[in-house]
Amino acid sequence: MAPLTLHEDPRSGNCFKIKLTAALLGLPLATRGYDIMKGETRTPEFLATVNANGRIPVLQIGEGADARFLPESNAACWYLAHGSALIPADRFAQADMLRWMFFEQYNHEPNIATLRFWLHFVGEANLSEQQRAQIMAKRMAGCAALDLMNKHLANNAFFCGEAVTLADIALFPYTHVAEEGGFGLRDYPHILRWIARVQALPGFIAMD
Amino acid sequence: MAPLTLHEDPRSGNCFKIKLTAALLGLPLATRGYDIMKGETRTPEFLATVNANGRIPVLQIGEGADARFLPESNAACWYLAHGSALIPADRFAQADMLRWMFFEQYNHEPNIATLRFWLHFVGEANLSEQQRAQIMAKRMAGCAALDLMNKHLANNAFFCGEAVTLADIALFPYTHVAEEGGFGLRDYPHILRWIARVQALPGFIAMD
Repeated sequence: MAPLTLHEDPRSGNCFKIKLTAALLGLPLATRGYDIMKGETRTPEFLATVNANGRIPVLQIGEGADARFLPESNAACWYLAHGSALIPADRFAQADMLRWMFFEQYNHEPNIATLRFWLHFVGEANLSEQQRAQIMAKRMAGCAALDLMNKHLANNAFFCGEAVTLADIALFPYTHVAEEGGFGLRDYPHILRWIARVQALPGFIAMD
Repeated sequence: MAPLTLHEDPRSGNCFKIKLTAALLGLPLATRGYDIMKGETRTPEFLATVNANGRIPVLQIGEGADARFLPESNAACWYLAHGSALIPADRFAQADMLRWMFFEQYNHEPNIATLRFWLHFVGEANLSEQQRAQIMAKRMAGCAALDLMNKHLANNAFFCGEAVTLADIALFPYTHVAEEGGFGLRDYPHILRWIARVQALPGFIAMD
């Protein structure tokens, strides 16, 4: 495989997804760090060569003139896990895994990760009026996402049954630090047991 | 293949994605309608049997006791297109297609589809203060998404090169009716040409 480089901010759960996927698969992955708080992913050079969308993570495959760049954390995980047991081969199971990954980007990340970013990194005192006005809606939507996950995990060791898949890797990062966004995880016992299960996987690495 | 039923609201672009995928593939697809404005996807029966997340679309595969339910529009499209030319086989191309589908759920739909829902269906006069306060941020984020698409389409007939894939099907529905959300498409000539290209595909069906 061509050399792999992750363009990342180590505080980002979206970046951690990709590092966790590589670790579970035993794939070497170099990193190049950016500080999103300082706008380092919005420079003209970054926009022109790494990601026109101005966001990390981006997975770089290859180097120099042949390098290809893959934005979107869950798409990068898919690239790394191609042909591995982290992606079920069965038609329904594969689509059902993607269902949880789209749920993560639509229902989970914009609420749980955004509140963590606002409250833990930006600081409530520094939020705009408009951000402050959205806290309660994001709190409720985040709790609904956690409740749905908790109910599903009552009957499943992992999101797609008895084995870990990319669905777990997509949902783990921002869930296990949800308390930094003001979400209490003690109300979700099945999530807590699932977190312990993920942390016990061979090859697991912790988030920076 | 087991009989396929789409649980839908015909006004939803997310539902249209699945119908368009089935049409392009020539797959028969029954429909069962719900009115999301009347809360028909939040009834105890719907939550217990169709989708605990209370949302449509849901693709039902099979009937009776063997029925399986697949929420999330892009996951349902993936299920339908499994093994077809709508999903490229190449490792990078497949991940790059998913990249646009995750972009659609994270950067496009919450801005462009939400403004269409608020302004075209709910009506600006009926919005809450909090919704009204978000219009400008969603307008700017929606324009940024359209701008990124327009630039990409300057050099590509479809999102993943010269042939239609699920990335196009995911992005088409809310883009082609973006003017209902107050977005002017005349500023995005490459998007307009891409819309015409999608509409000219064999098997194309229009949104209700």
